[in-house]
Amino acid sequence: MAAEFPQSKCVVEVVGNCGATVSHHVGPDELRPGGTVSGPVLMAVADVALYVAILGEIGIVPLAVTTSLTINFLRKPPGHGRIIGVCKLMKVGRSLAVGEVALYSEGFSEAVAHVVGTYSIPPRREG
Amino acid sequence: MAAEFPQSKCVVEVVGNCGATVSHHVGPDELRPGGTVSGPVLMAVADVALYVAILGEIGIVPLAVTTSLTINFLRKPPGHGRIIGVCKLMKVGRSLAVGEVALYSEGFSEAVAHVVGTYSIPPRREG
Amino acid sequence: MAAEFPQSKCVVEVVGNCGATVSHHVGPDELRPGGTVSGPVLMAVADVALYVAILGEIGIVPLAVTTSLTINFLRKPPGHGRIIGVCKLMKVGRSLAVGEVALYSEGFSEAVAHVVGTYSIPPRREG
Amino acid sequence: MAAEFPQSKCVVEVVGNCGATVSHHVGPDELRPGGTVSGPVLMAVADVALYVAILGEIGIVPLAVTTSLTINFLRKPPGHGRIIGVCKLMKVGRSLAVGEVALYSEGFSEAVAHVVGTYSIPPRREG
Repeated sequence: MAAEFPQSKCVVEVVGNCGATVSHHVGPDELRPGGTVSGPVLMAVADVALYVAILGEIGIVPLAVTTSLTINFLRKPPGHGRIIGVCKLMKVGRSLAVGEVALYSEGFSEAVAHVVGTYSIPPRREG
Repeated sequence: MAAEFPQSKCVVEVVGNCGATVSHHVGPDELRPGGTVSGPVLMAVADVALYVAILGEIGIVPLAVTTSLTINFLRKPPGHGRIIGVCKLMKVGRSLAVGEVALYSEGFSEAVAHVVGTYSIPPRREG
Repeated sequence: MAAEFPQSKCVVEVVGNCGATVSHHVGPDELRPGGTVSGPVLMAVADVALYVAILGEIGIVPLAVTTSLTINFLRKPPGHGRIIGVCKLMKVGRSLAVGEVALYSEGFSEAVAHVVGTYSIPPRREG
Repeated sequence: MAAEFPQSKCVVEVVGNCGATVSHHVGPDELRPGGTVSGPVLMAVADVALYVAILGEIGIVPLAVTTSLTINFLRKPPGHGRIIGVCKLMKVGRSLAVGEVALYSEGFSEAVAHVVGTYSIPPRREG
């Protein structure tokens, strides 16, 4: 994590069983006017959650890269409280992994955003 | 821009005619290992390009919010050079605007990523 | 259903509690070479599941229209067996509803496709 | 085309130069109440346009499959007149192709829908 996402402040809470949960402490420079968390911050948390979940399945493959990501913003997250990303993988194929991430503002039960993302998995060397 | 996106370092190059072009100088904390620009940075540039293009059509409406965004990553952008976002709006309706953004690494002709985003436009007060 | 989707052969199995389950008997003209169900058929089932789930929440509002839909194809569905669409709504706002649909081939536990869709809800007349 | 999409009534108008244009004559069973073309019909036309454009680049590779598709509905297409799909490929990589499709109702200059789709390209046998 530290090697791949050196800027990320995400903490891995749970990983395994085709999923992962990460949390992110929101900094003051990550807020938009009105005090909500900016969209790119939510996307970044989802991206990390997907990445962690996939590595939990296939092992450390540093060349896995995001190929697409669709985010729907559902509710404005308050600026205080951590952002929690809960990822469930729907497919881990030989060359492509697909997962969804529900993003929560800590303490609230309804998701603030929902992400579906795909990762390209590099071919493994045989040997 | 400064009021709505205080953290953004994007510069508005062109706006009008149902579109906008913005540029973003990539900082060292926006790179991923290998020296490419991180995905959330690309998404943030696209979000700003969409926002600027929409405001160019409907005037300053600070409550316009992104409702969804789909990004496809096409090529790894080199870490040097600015990111250029070229937005074309496809629809500016009463309550929803839809646009696409091609993201380029300065000096290259092929897009590094492509975004489609939707913005919700708040109802205007009459009178 | 019959009025809005006259061509649809979907059967509503469950509706309520912010969700819906529909089933669709696959006809011979809905297969692709190799015997799998064509993509547009899957999309159509997801669209109906979303529509039914939304009407279950807001009542019969025939002018609700799909504004966007993202589908990820996960596994090839066999041509026999019904397609089951299980929709969960993530947001039912005043003007926009967002939901996801997992599509299954009957008898298999892993989804063949996953959809996220948004519906625009027309403003209600007051009075 | 006839082999891969036996149900499709799409006609290939142009193919080549990283793009394709297809047209589709709308049948009476493809309309929704109010006389507009149903969403799945638009998706099907976009899917064919992408497929044709990709084959135009890589040759006849019957195993290329759609992996994801995002559609934004922009305007209600009138029920008469053909649907025209204009595809431009943004990337044709070794294992993944990405393209966009603007869908028009014949005789109108503004798109009725916009699609971004990805296709998985099977590895080519060497030798």
